[in-house]
Amino acid sequence: MTGSVSAAPGAIGAPDLLQDLAARHGTPLYVIDASVMRERLARLRAAVDGFADVFYSIKANPNPAVAQVFVKAGAGLEIASGGEFLTARAAGCAPDRILFAGPGKGQDELQLAIDGGIGEIHLESDEEIAQVAAIASRAGRRVHVAIRVNPAAAAQGGAMRMGGKPAAFGFDEEGIDAVIDRIEARPSLQLSGVHLFAGTQILDAAVLLTQWGHAIDVAARVARRLGRPLATIDLGGGLGVPYHAGDRELDLAAVAAGVPALRAQLAAEPLLAGARVILEPGRFLVGPAGVYLMAVRAVKVSRGSRFVIVDGGMHHHLAASGNLGQVVKRDYPITLVGRGDIADDPALPAVIAGPLCTPLDTLARQARLPTVAAGDLIAIQQSGAYGLTASPVGFLGHPMPAEVLVDGESQRLIRPRGSFAAPMTMPCPLPEAT
Amino acid sequence: MTGSVSAAPGAIGAPDLLQDLAARHGTPLYVIDASVMRERLARLRAAVDGFADVFYSIKANPNPAVAQVFVKAGAGLEIASGGEFLTARAAGCAPDRILFAGPGKGQDELQLAIDGGIGEIHLESDEEIAQVAAIASRAGRRVHVAIRVNPAAAAQGGAMRMGGKPAAFGFDEEGIDAVIDRIEARPSLQLSGVHLFAGTQILDAAVLLTQWGHAIDVAARVARRLGRPLATIDLGGGLGVPYHAGDRELDLAAVAAGVPALRAQLAAEPLLAGARVILEPGRFLVGPAGVYLMAVRAVKVSRGSRFVIVDGGMHHHLAASGNLGQVVKRDYPITLVGRGDIADDPALPAVIAGPLCTPLDTLARQARLPTVAAGDLIAIQQSGAYGLTASPVGFLGHPMPAEVLVDGESQRLIRPRGSFAAPMTMPCPLPEAT
Repeated sequence: MTGSVSAAPGAIGAPDLLQDLAARHGTPLYVIDASVMRERLARLRAAVDGFADVFYSIKANPNPAVAQVFVKAGAGLEIASGGEFLTARAAGCAPDRILFAGPGKGQDELQLAIDGGIGEIHLESDEEIAQVAAIASRAGRRVHVAIRVNPAAAAQGGAMRMGGKPAAFGFDEEGIDAVIDRIEARPSLQLSGVHLFAGTQILDAAVLLTQWGHAIDVAARVARRLGRPLATIDLGGGLGVPYHAGDRELDLAAVAAGVPALRAQLAAEPLLAGARVILEPGRFLVGPAGVYLMAVRAVKVSRGSRFVIVDGGMHHHLAASGNLGQVVKRDYPITLVGRGDIADDPALPAVIAGPLCTPLDTLARQARLPTVAAGDLIAIQQSGAYGLTASPVGFLGHPMPAEVLVDGESQRLIRPRGSFAAPMTMPCPLPEAT
Repeated sequence: MTGSVSAAPGAIGAPDLLQDLAARHGTPLYVIDASVMRERLARLRAAVDGFADVFYSIKANPNPAVAQVFVKAGAGLEIASGGEFLTARAAGCAPDRILFAGPGKGQDELQLAIDGGIGEIHLESDEEIAQVAAIASRAGRRVHVAIRVNPAAAAQGGAMRMGGKPAAFGFDEEGIDAVIDRIEARPSLQLSGVHLFAGTQILDAAVLLTQWGHAIDVAARVARRLGRPLATIDLGGGLGVPYHAGDRELDLAAVAAGVPALRAQLAAEPLLAGARVILEPGRFLVGPAGVYLMAVRAVKVSRGSRFVIVDGGMHHHLAASGNLGQVVKRDYPITLVGRGDIADDPALPAVIAGPLCTPLDTLARQARLPTVAAGDLIAIQQSGAYGLTASPVGFLGHPMPAEVLVDGESQRLIRPRGSFAAPMTMPCPLPEAT
C-alpha cells in the first residue's frame, strides 16, 4: 500500500476474518462492513449537525442488504431507476423517503414509482414534465416534483465536473423561470423542491460548501418565482473518498465549519426557512466499507516485470481496472491479507492481472507486494461503492462472486456465489444469516 | 453517420425490420444477423483459402445462439472460461473443436473442460502446467496442450499491442525452451500446439501477415525443440472491424495475397507440414452483424448543445460509451432508423446520452442527426461484438434488453427482455422461434 489512503477500517481490516470468509465463501469475494457504513453516516450527520437530512444514493451499491443498513439508521434513499425503486422498497424504505432523479426516466419507471407513492420526482426534461403530469392526472393525484438544475457555475475540484457546461442533466439554470412556469401550468404537479448537482468525487470541503451555497441561491430564486415556500432543497451528493496515492480524506471538520454560514443563508430567505435540506451521497457512505478479495492463481516474470495473476478481475471491479471513466489509470489501494510472516520480506513492484483474456483486465499497475504464491489473498480496498454492479459481470463467462455483510459478530451472505452453469442472480434476495 | 464506416449490412440495415422488431420486443434491443456472420466467416475462409481453420472466439458475443450459427457453419470455438465451455457445448460444439486460453484459469474450470473432453488447453503459467498435469493424471488421461507464447516482436497497428513487452499472457518467447522441457517432463501432458497472440483490432493486413509469419517461426522453434511434428498452430485473432471515422475495413484481398508465402514458410519446415493452422477471430466475425437499437426519450438544448436522451446506455454498450479500454472516446457509427420523410432535414450535431444518472453514460459526442423527437429510433452499428456481455448490465438497476437473431425470414428471440423485478437471465437459454 502506498500514499495517504489509510488501511481498511473496521472488520474488513481484520486479516483473520477475511481469510475465514474467503475460505468459507470462496474467492473472489466482496466483503462489506455495516458498522463502517453507519459510522460514516454518523460522522457526516455530525458534521452537518441537523442542517441536512442524509439520503443514501443507492446506485453506489444497490445490494438490498446494504440499502437496508442505511434505512434502519434513518436515511432516505435516492434512486435512479425502476429497479432501484423496487430495491429501495425491498430494503424497507418508506416510499415518501425515496427521491427519483435521472436524465431519461422511462414511462414504466415513472408509473411504478408514482403507483408506489414515491416522495418526490426530479424533473429533467419537458418530456418528463408531460409524462409525470399525465400519469399523476390519470391517477387523480398531485405528485410532488422537484426541478433539477444544471448550475451556471461549475464546481471545481471533483473528478467529473457537472455544472457550468452543457449537460444531459436537468435544466440550465439560465432558463429555469420558464421551466417553472411550464411545471406550474400542470395541475397534477406540485413543484416543491430544487435539486442541484454539480460534481462527483469531491474531496475539497470548500468546493462542496460553495456548491451548496449556490444551490441555496438557486432554491431562493425558484421559491420567489413560485411565490411560496419550498419543501426540499437537494444539494446533491458528490462527497468523495480517497482512492489513490496523494488523495486526502474529505475534511469533515472543514465542512462543519462552513455549515453555520449556509444555515444563515437559508434563514435569510423566508420562503426557504422551512425547507428540508437533503444530501444524497453514495460513494462517501459505502466506498471505504468494502473490500474485494482475490486469490493468487499464478506468479510470473515477463521481461523483468512481475505479474501476479489473481482470480478476480475487471468483470467484478471495473473501476479498479481504470475503465469506469478514469482518464488516468491509477491503482486502488492494494493489500496482502494475513501474511504476518512476511514482515521482513521487502515489498517489490508487481502488476496485478485478472483471469480475463484481455490486457484490460489489470487491477494494479504499480502495486508493491512481498513474495506471493498461488493461494495468497489480495484485497482491493475502497471497494464498497461502484464495484460489482458497475462492472461487466457477464464478460468472459465467470460466475458472480459472493458478497458478505459483516455487522459486529454477525456475517450474512447477501449475494450467493454463482456457478459456471448459473452465473448470476440479480437482484439479490434479502440476506440470510450464515 | 460519418466517415468510411459503411451502413449496416444485411437485414440489420433494413429500417422496416428494425422498426418492427423494436415495436414487438421493446427498446433498447440488440438485433444480430446470422447471414452477416456466415458471410464474414465465408469471406475470411475464402481469403485464407484452406490455409487456416477458423475458430470463433466466443467472448466477443457469447450468446449460445450466436455461437451455434458458427458451429453449424463448421467453425470451432475458442473459449476463455468454464462458463464459455458450457456455452460452447450448449451451442452444439464438439469438445475436440474447443480451445481454452486465458492467463489465470481456475482449478474448477480446468476440471470442467478436461472432464468434458476439451480439444486443447493453452498453458500460460507454471502453475497451470502443474494443475493440468495433476487433473489429467488423476483422470488417467493425456491432455493435449499448447504453449501460449508472448512474442518478442510487437505487432504494430492494433488498438492494443500485445507482444514485445511484459505481459500476463503466456510465456515470454525468449524463455520457451525451458518451458517446453518442463511440460515435456509431465507424462500426462501431450504438448502438441503453439498459440501466439500479438494484437487486437488490427485493420492492417500487413501487420496481421507479419504476426502470422512470426507465429510460424515460433512454432518451428517449438517443434524442433520437441523433435516431433506439431498438431496445431494457433495464430490468434485480432482481426479488426472499422468503428470510427477514418477507420478502413481490413483488406481481405491483401490478406489473401500474403497466404502463399505463409504456406511456403510452413512447408519449409517438415515438422510443421502436417500442422493445422488456426485463426480465432471474434470481433471480425460478429462485430458488423449487430446493431443496438434505442428509442429517444427526450431532446433538450443545454448551453447551445443538443442532447438526445435515449433509453439505451453504457449499461448495455460500454464500448460505445468509450469506457471499454478506449484511450480516446470516439463515436461508433450512429444512424436514425426509418425516417424517410427527413431527407431534406439537415443533420446537425447532437450528443446522445443514455438514461443513467452519470455523465459517463454518453453514447455519442459528435453525432449528426436531423430533428428527432421522443419515440424516434436510433441505432448504434458495429455492435455485434463486445456489446451486452462486456457491459455493466447491473449498473443503476435497468433490465437486460432483448436480443433477436435474424436469419433470412426467421427472427428468433435469443435473450428474453428482463423486467425491473427480474432484470436478467444469464446465460441465455437456446432460442425459440418467435
